[in-house]
Amino acid sequence: MKIGVAGLGLIGGSLALALRGAHEVTGFDSDERARAAAGSAGVRTVARVEELAPADAVIVATPLASVVPTLERLSSRSDGALLLDTGSLKGGVVEWAARAPAAARIVGGHPMAGSTASGFAAADPGLFRGRPFLLVPTERSDDRAMAIAGAIARDVGAVVTVCSAEAHDRAMARLIAAPLASAAALAAAAASEPLVGAAGPGFRDATRLADTALELAVDVLFGNARYTGEALDSVIEALEGIRDALGREDREYVRSLLGKARSVRAEIG
Amino acid sequence: MKIGVAGLGLIGGSLALALRGAHEVTGFDSDERARAAAGSAGVRTVARVEELAPADAVIVATPLASVVPTLERLSSRSDGALLLDTGSLKGGVVEWAARAPAAARIVGGHPMAGSTASGFAAADPGLFRGRPFLLVPTERSDDRAMAIAGAIARDVGAVVTVCSAEAHDRAMARLIAAPLASAAALAAAAASEPLVGAAGPGFRDATRLADTALELAVDVLFGNARYTGEALDSVIEALEGIRDALGREDREYVRSLLGKARSVRAEIG
Repeated sequence: MKIGVAGLGLIGGSLALALRGAHEVTGFDSDERARAAAGSAGVRTVARVEELAPADAVIVATPLASVVPTLERLSSRSDGALLLDTGSLKGGVVEWAARAPAAARIVGGHPMAGSTASGFAAADPGLFRGRPFLLVPTERSDDRAMAIAGAIARDVGAVVTVCSAEAHDRAMARLIAAPLASAAALAAAAASEPLVGAAGPGFRDATRLADTALELAVDVLFGNARYTGEALDSVIEALEGIRDALGREDREYVRSLLGKARSVRAEIG
Repeated sequence: MKIGVAGLGLIGGSLALALRGAHEVTGFDSDERARAAAGSAGVRTVARVEELAPADAVIVATPLASVVPTLERLSSRSDGALLLDTGSLKGGVVEWAARAPAAARIVGGHPMAGSTASGFAAADPGLFRGRPFLLVPTERSDDRAMAIAGAIARDVGAVVTVCSAEAHDRAMARLIAAPLASAAALAAAAASEPLVGAAGPGFRDATRLADTALELAVDVLFGNARYTGEALDSVIEALEGIRDALGREDREYVRSLLGKARSVRAEIG
């Protein structure tokens, strides 16, 4: 297939590297340095996003705030190309797709892979291997569009799961936003701790997500504010449950909650 | 020096392996298999804890609940030997030391190292290298006792910090108990999430402490209930702050909290 990739950061760059063996891949990034880096790695690049079409598919792997504007620019001239984004929230894409040009073919995508590193320099063709790749149908999806999106996901070694935007965004609140907020809350709560330098690997792991790039972190929390709020309510409720059990020396309550937590850990492997 | 080690699990076993090059080390464990494993690794063992004395120092590295009972058994016949424990809470040791035999020499110790593995099989002489080793003076500490405790900590490659039992236990609530409770709360809050299988490395890191051995986890939380409760209040307050900021779209509040969290992360390196 002829595949365009808009946005050559960690995700877009990794997709370009993973797909170029089996497909004709062209990349675009608004940053000239990212284009140069991709070019040095043997990825053909163009200087304007519109030049990615015509193609069988254009993947939009820009920062979250630019996803819908980029889809919008591409949709008027996509000429049947599948537009597949890779943002971490899907509500906005599905909402926009409902009022996109009738001929546009749009599927929401979310490869569940990443690293704290960013930029094309961190791109890795093996990034998606064995990882989930969530696909969200929109009002502008059809069987052919879903099939192409599925083929792309499988070609990078990922495992496809199809879900609704609502199910996706609710899950991301629990699996990404709440852990990020908890990491920040834990670290901030230790800010006045004189012995913080004695923190061990447990504290490091538990607070690692607080290192998420600042504006990405703000987008993750506020871009999904309703479901993030619900997820935080659940976490706060569980913490209050533990705190209250401490007060009444109710070890059984805590054993039961820890058991539930451990079964979730066992499920994610 | 002649050094006894009571408890040949991960911590005691690692201390025995790390110290036996420069010192005459004897180990004891109530579990015959642990003694056999240590024996196979070349550590001399005895079958009764009392046989660890006479010595220059006896390290008590039993599970937390057995620390004070073991110190008690040793204190009547320690004959000037330093008794140094390695438990993760110090309030109980300091309280007991105040009413221990006047001739006993007791220092609270806490090497800040570990792993989710346990038992002598996981012991590693390099476990403490570069890690903090907190020392807590008791009413039965004197200069010589502190000097021997410090020498042991340095001989295993650790970095000594001296603090009060109160400062220690308050810090552990923030650095160990609160992260454990948060990991459990995050995982439990995701128990009904259909897409939990899509969880990525961020969720895994943030919930890893929920895998702590169940009874150890209960001890960590309830053994330090007062300070754990205070630490959980701080974390809950921070999470409520984020949730409320989401409601009023106050990105500045969240940026400021994330900034505070990131400065703590930078401090722990």
